[in-house]
Amino acid sequence: MTFPQELERTASAIEQRLGAHLAAVQGAPQSGTALADAMRYAALGGGKRLRPFLLIQSARLFGVDEAHALDAACALECIHCYSLVHDDLPAMDDDAVRRGRPTLHIAFDEATAILAGDALLTLAFEILSAPATHADAAVRAELVLMLARASGWQGMALGQALDLSAAHRAFTPEDTVTMQTLKTGALFRFACEAGAVLGGADGRGRAALTAYAAAFGRAFQLADDLLDAQGDAEAMGKAVAKDADQGKATLVALLGIEGAKARLAGLVAEAEDALAPFGDEAAMLIDAARFVAERRA
Amino acid sequence: MTFPQELERTASAIEQRLGAHLAAVQGAPQSGTALADAMRYAALGGGKRLRPFLLIQSARLFGVDEAHALDAACALECIHCYSLVHDDLPAMDDDAVRRGRPTLHIAFDEATAILAGDALLTLAFEILSAPATHADAAVRAELVLMLARASGWQGMALGQALDLSAAHRAFTPEDTVTMQTLKTGALFRFACEAGAVLGGADGRGRAALTAYAAAFGRAFQLADDLLDAQGDAEAMGKAVAKDADQGKATLVALLGIEGAKARLAGLVAEAEDALAPFGDEAAMLIDAARFVAERRA
Repeated sequence: MTFPQELERTASAIEQRLGAHLAAVQGAPQSGTALADAMRYAALGGGKRLRPFLLIQSARLFGVDEAHALDAACALECIHCYSLVHDDLPAMDDDAVRRGRPTLHIAFDEATAILAGDALLTLAFEILSAPATHADAAVRAELVLMLARASGWQGMALGQALDLSAAHRAFTPEDTVTMQTLKTGALFRFACEAGAVLGGADGRGRAALTAYAAAFGRAFQLADDLLDAQGDAEAMGKAVAKDADQGKATLVALLGIEGAKARLAGLVAEAEDALAPFGDEAAMLIDAARFVAERRA
Repeated sequence: MTFPQELERTASAIEQRLGAHLAAVQGAPQSGTALADAMRYAALGGGKRLRPFLLIQSARLFGVDEAHALDAACALECIHCYSLVHDDLPAMDDDAVRRGRPTLHIAFDEATAILAGDALLTLAFEILSAPATHADAAVRAELVLMLARASGWQGMALGQALDLSAAHRAFTPEDTVTMQTLKTGALFRFACEAGAVLGGADGRGRAALTAYAAAFGRAFQLADDLLDAQGDAEAMGKAVAKDADQGKATLVALLGIEGAKARLAGLVAEAEDALAPFGDEAAMLIDAARFVAERRA
């Protein structure tokens, strides 16, 4: 199977499993509230499911089949979806369109968007800690700890706080990279390390995935910065050239378009090197790094 | 030690331990963001710490000393504090004062309040899943699952969604009780059951605490409704008589003031009965039920 086919197949498996987690609860006093509908709107029907893909492929390197990585991948996707909902709020980035659809606070209302985000964030930990995620409670507890750290006040949430602070001060390219490493890099890292933890990887195996995730995350961001600098709003499905408008200098400003492209190629090579010990088994993850570096949207 | 003294002593222990969890991180790129300060504003310096008190006292019934219940109690308080921050937001209840101080979005700004709430929610699971909370990972994973269920889309978050829906439809007294059971009852239940789980209680022991928590939660709410109906804004430190204004009929409307007081006495008796098997060991928990029933603020 080619990488695009595998990515699409995984996205469909995630969609189905997330849908099952978010299925209407019989007899619950949900009627009269839009909470569950809003959670489904935010979590279902869109997205490349790149983070779940990384988690599932990383787990596969350590002998874990997809069925036993799917719940952890869903938990991670809940965190990603909640972060998009809250980041889009009027008080935050104030975005009206996401994945070509109205954002949640537009489609529903602001209170429902805040609450649905909170509930998706909480659902991530409900899924991750449930026995179905892994037979060993020590693995589940470790995954919870890792995900909380990756997404919390010293991880993704701090990244968003730094991003918001750009309204009040100029960002050097280094500031921007620090912000991006927290805001999006932390979840990529969790995706890859969670796969290793699910498979009982040793220190060396896990370190290889950590190195891959670091290169992958930086490549993802640099490609995003390039798209933002050169971008096409229609292809992106969201507003572009916002970084420069908001006083955030990126690596593209420092290196220039061609320099940034060369750096990007170097990051893809780093990602490949990190997974060299796995040989052909890692082909999908290497294709994923190439994909994010080359994407046009 | 009397109950008020013990409550105050516990609050001080929680304040200290939460402060340690939220201590400034050396070398972190926090500078330039108000996130950590906002989290400390929301979590420190106030509150009776009633939920942590219930958790610590429940754990004590099963032989767990306070030092080994403190982190779980802090995790629970993080959830409570996050819920207050988000409930106070302009899009939600739009409250400007909490515990006699400006609410977080007034003291800082709305984006920071959303983000600090998210980060406190996440921190709860970071604390709960960490090895320091309990030596047995199975206990930690179970506590995470219980807290996620208590606070998520079928627990506290659903309660808040129901509460918001009162703006669009009339609430019968039964609707109000359902909403309250989810919005505040679920965390009281977690507090008491978590104590039992920390102490490795058997089914009967845990069921006794569940029954106590149910009576306690209903007493807490009914006392709140009575205060709201008869209330004194100054003593409450927040706006009163909001329920009737917002079309939410409470049990007080159904039973009348005197009827509600009789029901309240019955709930305290239920709480006492549930803990009868523990004898004098449960005196503090019984005093806590009497306290919430009799409080004037």
